[in-house]
Amino acid sequence: MALRNKGLLIVFSGPSGSGKDTVLAELKTRDINMKQSISVTTRDMREGEVDGVDYFFTDVETFEKNIKEDYFLEYVKYGSNYYGTPKKRIEELTDEGSDVFLKIEVEGGGNVRKVFPECVSIFIVPPSMDELEKRLRGRGTETEESFNKRFAIAKDEIKRACEYDYIVVNDSVSLCADKVCAIIEAEKLKFSRMKALVDDMN
Amino acid sequence: MALRNKGLLIVFSGPSGSGKDTVLAELKTRDINMKQSISVTTRDMREGEVDGVDYFFTDVETFEKNIKEDYFLEYVKYGSNYYGTPKKRIEELTDEGSDVFLKIEVEGGGNVRKVFPECVSIFIVPPSMDELEKRLRGRGTETEESFNKRFAIAKDEIKRACEYDYIVVNDSVSLCADKVCAIIEAEKLKFSRMKALVDDMN
Repeated sequence: MALRNKGLLIVFSGPSGSGKDTVLAELKTRDINMKQSISVTTRDMREGEVDGVDYFFTDVETFEKNIKEDYFLEYVKYGSNYYGTPKKRIEELTDEGSDVFLKIEVEGGGNVRKVFPECVSIFIVPPSMDELEKRLRGRGTETEESFNKRFAIAKDEIKRACEYDYIVVNDSVSLCADKVCAIIEAEKLKFSRMKALVDDMN
Repeated sequence: MALRNKGLLIVFSGPSGSGKDTVLAELKTRDINMKQSISVTTRDMREGEVDGVDYFFTDVETFEKNIKEDYFLEYVKYGSNYYGTPKKRIEELTDEGSDVFLKIEVEGGGNVRKVFPECVSIFIVPPSMDELEKRLRGRGTETEESFNKRFAIAKDEIKRACEYDYIVVNDSVSLCADKVCAIIEAEKLKFSRMKALVDDMN
């Protein structure tokens, strides 16, 4: 398939409270051919999570076997838990022409960029740190200690936004999704993807 | 003014018959803050052209004086005629936050990219060479010789499309303008322009 018909791999990150899940849900309602890549993890399933929706849940033995079989585009280990991005499914989907969104932590996003430099990376930020604090506290499930920890992690993640191609402020979910759509449209007009068409003219 | 509020300089090229003037006219009706930069030339004014609209028309002596005064962002000389891009006006407009479109030949476009690497370059192509031929012949003002010459120049220009950031096919003026708007929107979300905002958060 010609490059210009291939879908994009979109590395989609943002701190907890940036609203990236809501933006992804909004994007699914738009007239774009988008698919979300589901990560694989060995951590325990949490209440409310669904296997194959939030993650593919697996055991350490299978995960380590998969690593050896070159199954992952990238993987990381946090504590005793593995998190990985399955490679084959992403390739199938982009080959079909779908734009694949990979919701991923900053660390994993960096790994994906290394092995897949043609990916497009988008970092979602809240409109302000005050708003982020409000959103994190608004969940109402946080102790002060847990909030402080999550807020510090969010700050650290925002410091690494410089590693991303695009920064989108999520002040309105709908406008934020519009901007992501504009990025996808523009990326597809880049010369590298249009080269075949121009070559055909000569 | 913070970089993120600064307008873009858009190098806008395409062969004769690509319809770039029609696309520019359509863009002027859109809800974007766009301005067009008018070039300066020493060539004779043609029938139907308006000074200050199509070009600023001037004489060789003034043009050469302006060159010495560093008045131009770039200039070229074709035969005995000079063509130049006034620098100050572009800086004023981008500082005000306007996105400035510079309709320019491929040669001049390359010069602008050298001195202003942060510009965004867009190359408009016709949907096919057959369609280009139809459009050029459709003007009805061409002799066969004149057509052949213009068609050969167009082909040469399309070969240099690889120097541009983005390629937009003009099969429909309205869709083509939509794509240019998406490029502008996406370019403004690039990390380099959003850096100040992210820095403010840390």
